[in-house]
Amino acid sequence: MRQSQLFMPTLREAPSEADAISHQLMLRAGLIRQLAAGIYIYLPSGRRVLRKLEAIIREEMDKAGGQEVFMPAMQPADLWRQSGRYDKYGPELVRLKDRHDREFALGPTHEEVITDLMRSEVSSYRQLPVTLYQIQTKFRDEKRPRYGLLRGREFMMKDAYSFDADWEGLDRSYQRMYEAYHRIFARFGLNVRPVEADAGTIGGEGGTHEFMALADIGEDTIAACTHCQYAANLEKAGYRAADDVPNEGDSNYSGLEKLHPPKVRKIDELVQALNFPADQILKTLLFLADGKPVAVIVRGDHEVNEIKLASLLRADELELADQETTERLTGAAVGFAGPIGLSIPVLVDNAAARISSGVAGANETDYHFKHVRPGVHFEIAQLGDLRNAVPGDGCPKCAEGQLRMFRGIEVGQVFKLGTKYSAVMKAAYLDAEGQEKPVIMGCYGIGISRVMSAVVEQHHDEQGIRWPLEIAPYQVHVVPVSAKDEQQMKVAEELYAELSAAGLEVLVDDRDERPGVKFKDSDLIGIPVRIVVGRQAAGGVVELKYRNEKEALQVKSEDIVSLVKGVYRL
Amino acid sequence: MRQSQLFMPTLREAPSEADAISHQLMLRAGLIRQLAAGIYIYLPSGRRVLRKLEAIIREEMDKAGGQEVFMPAMQPADLWRQSGRYDKYGPELVRLKDRHDREFALGPTHEEVITDLMRSEVSSYRQLPVTLYQIQTKFRDEKRPRYGLLRGREFMMKDAYSFDADWEGLDRSYQRMYEAYHRIFARFGLNVRPVEADAGTIGGEGGTHEFMALADIGEDTIAACTHCQYAANLEKAGYRAADDVPNEGDSNYSGLEKLHPPKVRKIDELVQALNFPADQILKTLLFLADGKPVAVIVRGDHEVNEIKLASLLRADELELADQETTERLTGAAVGFAGPIGLSIPVLVDNAAARISSGVAGANETDYHFKHVRPGVHFEIAQLGDLRNAVPGDGCPKCAEGQLRMFRGIEVGQVFKLGTKYSAVMKAAYLDAEGQEKPVIMGCYGIGISRVMSAVVEQHHDEQGIRWPLEIAPYQVHVVPVSAKDEQQMKVAEELYAELSAAGLEVLVDDRDERPGVKFKDSDLIGIPVRIVVGRQAAGGVVELKYRNEKEALQVKSEDIVSLVKGVYRL
Repeated sequence: MRQSQLFMPTLREAPSEADAISHQLMLRAGLIRQLAAGIYIYLPSGRRVLRKLEAIIREEMDKAGGQEVFMPAMQPADLWRQSGRYDKYGPELVRLKDRHDREFALGPTHEEVITDLMRSEVSSYRQLPVTLYQIQTKFRDEKRPRYGLLRGREFMMKDAYSFDADWEGLDRSYQRMYEAYHRIFARFGLNVRPVEADAGTIGGEGGTHEFMALADIGEDTIAACTHCQYAANLEKAGYRAADDVPNEGDSNYSGLEKLHPPKVRKIDELVQALNFPADQILKTLLFLADGKPVAVIVRGDHEVNEIKLASLLRADELELADQETTERLTGAAVGFAGPIGLSIPVLVDNAAARISSGVAGANETDYHFKHVRPGVHFEIAQLGDLRNAVPGDGCPKCAEGQLRMFRGIEVGQVFKLGTKYSAVMKAAYLDAEGQEKPVIMGCYGIGISRVMSAVVEQHHDEQGIRWPLEIAPYQVHVVPVSAKDEQQMKVAEELYAELSAAGLEVLVDDRDERPGVKFKDSDLIGIPVRIVVGRQAAGGVVELKYRNEKEALQVKSEDIVSLVKGVYRL
Repeated sequence: MRQSQLFMPTLREAPSEADAISHQLMLRAGLIRQLAAGIYIYLPSGRRVLRKLEAIIREEMDKAGGQEVFMPAMQPADLWRQSGRYDKYGPELVRLKDRHDREFALGPTHEEVITDLMRSEVSSYRQLPVTLYQIQTKFRDEKRPRYGLLRGREFMMKDAYSFDADWEGLDRSYQRMYEAYHRIFARFGLNVRPVEADAGTIGGEGGTHEFMALADIGEDTIAACTHCQYAANLEKAGYRAADDVPNEGDSNYSGLEKLHPPKVRKIDELVQALNFPADQILKTLLFLADGKPVAVIVRGDHEVNEIKLASLLRADELELADQETTERLTGAAVGFAGPIGLSIPVLVDNAAARISSGVAGANETDYHFKHVRPGVHFEIAQLGDLRNAVPGDGCPKCAEGQLRMFRGIEVGQVFKLGTKYSAVMKAAYLDAEGQEKPVIMGCYGIGISRVMSAVVEQHHDEQGIRWPLEIAPYQVHVVPVSAKDEQQMKVAEELYAELSAAGLEVLVDDRDERPGVKFKDSDLIGIPVRIVVGRQAAGGVVELKYRNEKEALQVKSEDIVSLVKGVYRL
């Protein structure tokens, strides 16, 4: 491809709305443009990267026994009602009506559609197992779309669904996908870590893993053990329970004392004003669980884990109480909630329950209590693990390790759904004995457009992107220093022809631009191999530079084709 | 692929709702399943065909200088307001609101999005010409989705858009696409005919061609000349104007006569009741053009062409008057409208204007007039070509030919948009002299899912589909007659391995089914080459049968690979 003809509008500066590095670089390198919040156009180079990701996924899915299908974006609301997700999914589900006023959802995922298909088409154990996958556009009306493709509202996804006769079959299907995912992400050049995770709105009974690409910008926190292989999404991460057993009491206990540090609302303000350690503060938060208010107490240096809380309460919906509700329940301004005197259930985290003489809000504006002891000054409705793990917590799986925290981008997730959809939607088969049984399902996603961002987060420097070999938009960038120099252009054209004939994807910068502009663009767009055709071209020497390395090599131009073929193992 | 593992549920009988042959066969061959009216799932074999169609399109688009992009389905309504199409498009446009109540349309086409992109990114003539294309899901809420993929509500389309500095450039871009379309449809195995057409809701100033796949099921009628290359969609087709020049009058003229043939409403009833030829009847229809009533008169044996009528009236919206309006305007029941005494403009087709003594409704229930002469008994508000061409009409392009009619499926359309979108949306560039000018656009569509149906309409027999070579889901079907016969299975497995190693796509029917079932399925799914491994397999002989031919050949199994490679030119 001649760069003069390629529609790849590069930018000197990143638009101000782009805050993630990957977002900035993808805009600057002319890969994508925003159409609306969280909705992007892929320009030709971006489309090429996307197609390479798709091709790798297809190869590995086929190798793992998957069969490609293609399902619609428009899904009848009725199917979503059958699975019970139409109401549960909330405003993230894009809803619409057709001209006959029939309700549809734009698919954020396809469990309903494929379960509906399989209940019609599968009747016998002889038709199982089968794994179907698709590469297709998904819609999720995110509350806060951001970071470019990282959190979009319309995005490209690979989703796969396995159907087995029993749980052992599901284990095998799951394992095949799990292994295929490792191969896929390795070929993408992504550093990923599989972690235990919560099943979220997809649900299921058999556990789930997320594949996390490590990156500072990541919206997820991973807790990983220093000693064993344990790793989990913070929302799911446990810790060594022994550390959190409530103690038996404190002989130095003295009665409640009311404090009046004015306008002190937040934990750090409290720590400073009272010169009191955060781990002795009983932090009180009010939630609405399926609409009913509860108070939750964790240590001042801990955070409530809403997934653990919802699980303990068996609540479908959980949200922090708003200002009005808080003021009504506590009779005080926000910031002074405490467990004493509240008329709603008080749930206490194991670690907080150990505090024998803590500080808590007094449910009175500008007042706190000192010497508060859970179980003595207020009733504990439920006790349990309600907090996020923190760095230094003991590993829940091994005796030796401690937890460390990392940031990650979720690029894939695999679920053992079990019968979550097949039971309620009645997707059943007859086994060899003629018994009707529900099919056992798994589902497996990769966020393809998000992967693009994750790759750029992991592979860039100050000058631009450094594409991994298998997914670069082009494989070789031939850059004649001066388009006006006939000899240089002749050599560049020859290399373009020879490299192309060897099966390589070549971009040749035939633009009449200053060398500085050309090199800046070349670094920005990040093709792995660059060949600079300069003054020495007349003498048969060109410069070979790998995007990942600082130094360039002087190479005979006649050696270029075999060298580059070597890089790409052609 | 082993057929025992392929998810390809074939059906003995077509579901009753499928009326088109292609729809029946695609359901029966396990290519597609319906999710909702006009919304389909592509099963693995169907997806394979779709991907082959996509691959051919990509190759030919790239060869023609196109660059692939990928645009979103969700398009801000604001863009559609800018082009003026948000209101004009009507209920076919799928509309929705996001969680912030912002309006979106699901793209039925992408002129607005790409014009918006180009107005941001193109500023200089040096960036032109450029042609961008995508392969992407489109949404059109059809009033009557039918015939399976032929008229769907969610479907796969290739759409391309060219941007040029001037009309000469557009002519070149258009010509390149026009030629690419011929190559694409030829590779699809489709018999297509390009015809002149109306630009419809896409619009544009420079003309348009449709590519019609000839098929009886086709919803379009093509008028084609017996002598020259002229062919046009009936909605656009002209005819030799000389034939329709009104005559000068009739010396045998006698005055109006009122007739009373009771309950005679329709033309054929009138012809029978009065023993009067249809071509002497002044058929009167009432329309609302942008809400204003008009009467239109054509000959009794002719049909009003609404596109020609709308064009003559410069009307955006045209609809037949409903019963109530008709009764109000004529003062009579429906079926008795006539030009005499009407208080609305009467438009007369050229051919009808020649009638010197015709029959027309009397605007009085159960009454007609005889001896009616246009221009004498009623005023002609406008005279023009307002009818569909009919078989036998003279060709409008040559002196010798006559028009014949064919049915066709529109599989592609190319438009010279000119400045229709760039002017109103202000997509401009600076020319070499620094003058600002609107970009000159073209757009080019192929209905990929519809193509699948059109191919099956053209390539089938009573037993099933006969896929053209380049787009068959698999290239070779290896069918051992008995899965229980070890020798047969051994030969079949060897052929499977050897053919696959030679780069061919093989489906082997390893199912333990009766031979009749296997052969029926094989004919139904229509893979171009079938190899039957039967009793003679032990002696090294198998049967080679082409799906398009009746007779099978006895062939040494060692020759199979080179024979099949020959078929596919590998």
